Amino acid sequence: MSVRNVAIIGLGLLGGSIGLAVKEHAPQITTTGYDRDPDVRAKAAELGLAGTICDSAQEAVREADLVVLCVPVGAMEEAARELAGHLKDGAIISDVGSSKQSVAEALTRALPGHTIIPAHPVAGTEQSGPDAGFASLFTNRWCILTPPEGANEAAIASLSEFWSALGANVELMDAEHHDLVLAVTSHIPHLIAFTIVGTASDLEEVTRSEVIKYSAGGFRDFTRIAASDPVMWRDVFLSNKGAVLEMLGRFTEDLTALQRAIRSGDGETLHELFSRTRTIRRAVIEEGQDDDRPDFGREDHL
Amino acid sequence: MSVRNVAIIGLGLLGGSIGLAVKEHAPQITTTGYDRDPDVRAKAAELGLAGTICDSAQEAVREADLVVLCVPVGAMEEAARELAGHLKDGAIISDVGSSKQSVAEALTRALPGHTIIPAHPVAGTEQSGPDAGFASLFTNRWCILTPPEGANEAAIASLSEFWSALGANVELMDAEHHDLVLAVTSHIPHLIAFTIVGTASDLEEVTRSEVIKYSAGGFRDFTRIAASDPVMWRDVFLSNKGAVLEMLGRFTEDLTALQRAIRSGDGETLHELFSRTRTIRRAVIEEGQDDDRPDFGREDHL
Repeated sequence: MSVRNVAIIGLGLLGGSIGLAVKEHAPQITTTGYDRDPDVRAKAAELGLAGTICDSAQEAVREADLVVLCVPVGAMEEAARELAGHLKDGAIISDVGSSKQSVAEALTRALPGHTIIPAHPVAGTEQSGPDAGFASLFTNRWCILTPPEGANEAAIASLSEFWSALGANVELMDAEHHDLVLAVTSHIPHLIAFTIVGTASDLEEVTRSEVIKYSAGGFRDFTRIAASDPVMWRDVFLSNKGAVLEMLGRFTEDLTALQRAIRSGDGETLHELFSRTRTIRRAVIEEGQDDDRPDFGREDHL
Repeated sequence: MSVRNVAIIGLGLLGGSIGLAVKEHAPQITTTGYDRDPDVRAKAAELGLAGTICDSAQEAVREADLVVLCVPVGAMEEAARELAGHLKDGAIISDVGSSKQSVAEALTRALPGHTIIPAHPVAGTEQSGPDAGFASLFTNRWCILTPPEGANEAAIASLSEFWSALGANVELMDAEHHDLVLAVTSHIPHLIAFTIVGTASDLEEVTRSEVIKYSAGGFRDFTRIAASDPVMWRDVFLSNKGAVLEMLGRFTEDLTALQRAIRSGDGETLHELFSRTRTIRRAVIEEGQDDDRPDFGREDHL
């Protein structure tokens, strides 16, 4: 049961990239797209982010056998509610949200009795909006499906096939575990980056222009992550509160221990940690999860 | 009074890059190099990191009118002591250390009465060792000189000219202020990156292989910084303790405030901060301090 018609609701970085990736990698699939912002719809039509850009969500989903909600996680429930009564029989409802337990609950509340298979492609950039999408965003990236217990096996297979066609590697995971894993690999890193960039820009003793000027010492990496979409990230933290607070607790414990090591001049503790973290980098590169060029290859572009 | 002979003590990423940058951008300057590790000396000779690789520091500095110490800040004093009695009259002693008050003190203790002008090129990659250097490392990067009060003006001018010739933009700063600025733009970002990578690799509920696999959510950026040289960074934190602890205090205060906002569901506070941090990124790019390609242009290399 292959997907033949996909409706993309929300045409920002993720939604737009799905449309472009389908066009490039799975042109046999028809796409319809909708965004509640008319300017975004106009831009999406201009850029060809979907085969047909519709003026209502209801129209966009009418023929779809897969609906992918690409809106901030806090807007999922409302976006899904609009579709009630307009969906094709047996349509799969999915999404691309970064937290999965709360999305599963929201979609189930909005569309009870429908086939809901939440998903999270672990891919993106710091940019957002309809201009930001590109067809290769999902190539060799992981897409995690978190089907609820007892979910329709054929629907899981169809959704897996869809993401594989877009170039992603598909993995199934329990939603609760997903939320814990992503709290560590994504949500806490973002929270820390937002915080340090905020701290640095609020100092009195060091001017903002100094912070920017000397950012090549490491700070500039954090500014990239801290440039991510504010609404999307606000919703992520509010919707994955439990796992984020849990992991934040671990992080601050560890940071306090390092603070103590610095205060007491305990170089051995610092050296031991810094040596261990180096090996993690190697594994990330060996697993194909990052660019192996020093400094992300900036040298060629600055 | 232009620099004509430079001695580079320590032939890792920074020392090697200075040698290569001189060869490319200022070939009229003669370079000698020394490293206390014989394997590094052999590698440096093979790679041509300096015109002459010497078997002792004393020999390397004999004819030098500029000596640049490129060793971890904790090793500066010992490295400088070895030079006492072997320096040319009027030779400028400088370095590339990331903290400047402690280095100024160490060099003054080791070489009293000499012309000491500490410096810090704000440039580097996560790699280290003699293989890691390249000639363009300093191109369009800032090099901060922190001359002590009453320092010889001609020596400051010569050192500025040297770094400008290597492609750097030179700035003068008070050592104390340098240490505060770099604590924010470099030392705390590194400390945070080391910590979160350590935290993530020590979890019981999330495996290390999951952390690596899903690192594209943001974590992988931190692994790059956390792959930096362990000895260099141990020494930075121990030598800039005051400013690092002060700035760490500000950071943890701000993080605690965000933690409270998440716990209480205060989306407005989160959104306000995340919107502000986005503008900092724009300034970093406008100032030419970072690559403007989304996701550091990884897409082309993965």
